[in-house]
Amino acid sequence: MEFYCSKNNLVNAVNIVSKAVPSKTTMTILECILINVSNGKIILTSNDTELGIETEIKGEIKDNGIIAIEAKLFSEIVRKLPDNIVHIKSDNNYVLNISCEKNNFSIAGKDGSDFPYLEDVEKKDFITISQFTLKEVIRQTIFSISQSENNKIMTGELLDINGNILRLISLDGHRISIRKIELRQDYASLKVIIPGKTLNELSKILSGEIEKVVNIYFSKSNAVFEFDNTVVVTRLIEGDYFDVDKMVSNEYSTKINIDKKELISCIDRATLLVRENDRKPVIITINDEEFELEIKSPIGSMDESINIEKEGADLKIGFNPRFLLDALKVIDDDKINIFFMNSKAPCYIKDDKGKYNYMILPINFNTV
Amino acid sequence: MEFYCSKNNLVNAVNIVSKAVPSKTTMTILECILINVSNGKIILTSNDTELGIETEIKGEIKDNGIIAIEAKLFSEIVRKLPDNIVHIKSDNNYVLNISCEKNNFSIAGKDGSDFPYLEDVEKKDFITISQFTLKEVIRQTIFSISQSENNKIMTGELLDINGNILRLISLDGHRISIRKIELRQDYASLKVIIPGKTLNELSKILSGEIEKVVNIYFSKSNAVFEFDNTVVVTRLIEGDYFDVDKMVSNEYSTKINIDKKELISCIDRATLLVRENDRKPVIITINDEEFELEIKSPIGSMDESINIEKEGADLKIGFNPRFLLDALKVIDDDKINIFFMNSKAPCYIKDDKGKYNYMILPINFNTV
Repeated sequence: MEFYCSKNNLVNAVNIVSKAVPSKTTMTILECILINVSNGKIILTSNDTELGIETEIKGEIKDNGIIAIEAKLFSEIVRKLPDNIVHIKSDNNYVLNISCEKNNFSIAGKDGSDFPYLEDVEKKDFITISQFTLKEVIRQTIFSISQSENNKIMTGELLDINGNILRLISLDGHRISIRKIELRQDYASLKVIIPGKTLNELSKILSGEIEKVVNIYFSKSNAVFEFDNTVVVTRLIEGDYFDVDKMVSNEYSTKINIDKKELISCIDRATLLVRENDRKPVIITINDEEFELEIKSPIGSMDESINIEKEGADLKIGFNPRFLLDALKVIDDDKINIFFMNSKAPCYIKDDKGKYNYMILPINFNTV
Repeated sequence: MEFYCSKNNLVNAVNIVSKAVPSKTTMTILECILINVSNGKIILTSNDTELGIETEIKGEIKDNGIIAIEAKLFSEIVRKLPDNIVHIKSDNNYVLNISCEKNNFSIAGKDGSDFPYLEDVEKKDFITISQFTLKEVIRQTIFSISQSENNKIMTGELLDINGNILRLISLDGHRISIRKIELRQDYASLKVIIPGKTLNELSKILSGEIEKVVNIYFSKSNAVFEFDNTVVVTRLIEGDYFDVDKMVSNEYSTKINIDKKELISCIDRATLLVRENDRKPVIITINDEEFELEIKSPIGSMDESINIEKEGADLKIGFNPRFLLDALKVIDDDKINIFFMNSKAPCYIKDDKGKYNYMILPINFNTV
């Protein structure tokens, strides 16, 4: 195998495929990036058996071949090369030579034919979405997937397509996050559960440019994201997702409109009095036009009031401050609506247009 | 105690005194910042018994008093306050109230009279130096103090004043760093050993502005650094420092002039093949006008050549790459001189004007 390419092209491609290299694995070949030069293409591949990434590098091919090379070392080396054309060459003993200007590296690789191939997905059903939008909705929902593997379904997100509406939904037993976007055309109805890890890594690779699109293909057990020179293949999580529409309510007895930044700063300050893993709630009292937030902990106490617009009844209710912060931080609006029923029912942070709906369960502040 | 001050003044002062709060201590009072309002001044103090810092806050005093308050919590709270006037008040039960706009914190403090006072140093002998210069020479020498407490003297730096010349010197058994600066006037000769920790924390507090100065006072066992609204008091390390002038030599058989950035990049790449704590040397071969650097390790091999200007004999010599990098990274010159005697003698990286001299011992590359 032998080819030339620019350092920048090489670094970008290695950064992309590195996202699917597992940090811990019993199969050492998976800690490698596969370099495959054939059919006039230079392709890098990584695969952690649940998630696989393939990306093409533009360059000048001298000789076909295939080699697997330890991802971390290869990535460190290419990043530190001079900014110039890189010459990559391997021999029959799986030694990889990397040269750039007057610098030469030789490192040991592995037989590339041992590397597991990515799942082949028939490219039939697909949807098209802007890279920017996909990156945004992932960021705006990913925080409320479950971190525990006890319920596999909660570690993923529901991708729900209905006509020209796509919804991305996550929940973890304490809260539900729903984001809705309009697609440019209608598609057949579809519900799939995508692993949270895939969405996390995907959002790091997506360029975030509005003009650039990603095509998403679906098969029974896989999804494929195709964009730029890159293909991301992921297994889907099997099973039926929760019927979220039955879990959320539109009724309320109190509605407030509050400045988002003021509320974030206020909760941020309150969390200073909470040690990690301590389930101290912040207690919110809504009285006429005033919103008061209090916290009492062994460390000290804090109270602060914020002006609001209010409809409906007065209320006192407790929340985990982190759950409020997680939702508030991914909302772009400056002024937000929060809907309450009573001190035992969830609150909903949602906009008038139905683009987002964040449900958060309260904490009983009398017993903690 | 009661006073008002701006959030910014408060945050700056807390940041400064936090540098002398020990992270681990058996005396819990030392984990506090002392707030002392008396004689028309608001003073914050911290003290880890070796290093003490005192700084004044400009503000409006309502009532005198003294309280000790947990440094970490107090620092976190004041940083997150709104950008406005802060009202600080304590009562007889050592409860501290911090209010800003519509926010109120109450946290428990401690009796301030238990806090150890800073050593009183008679302000007689002193030198004056620009904050920028002091900050620079600390950065340019601090890396080669010893990390081990086995030889206490090597954990500090020698401050050596002779006429209008100030030298700051550190050594760790493998290398010596010497920086020389000219003072604006002559001073009495003086040699003191300042703890490395003091210099480290001091360099973080110094503003680095050329126009601003620091006055340094000396007593038998202490030094005091006075600048802006701040006073830093440190114990000195007892004992006689090494006679460094007898340890460095001006003789050489090979002198090279090399591009500093090229050399740093080259060594940086070579270190990718060295696992931490592995003492693999880089091997330098100087042949005619070419400088070649090689490394071989269980991970792989690298070689690279750099054009140089050379005087004297050809040479092959091995070094710990980190020791070369540490010195090179604090030198401002683009082209540097390196002087060699033979493969068993140290090299010297030094300039023509005698502003810096970095001595590094070689590694015997035949036995490693």
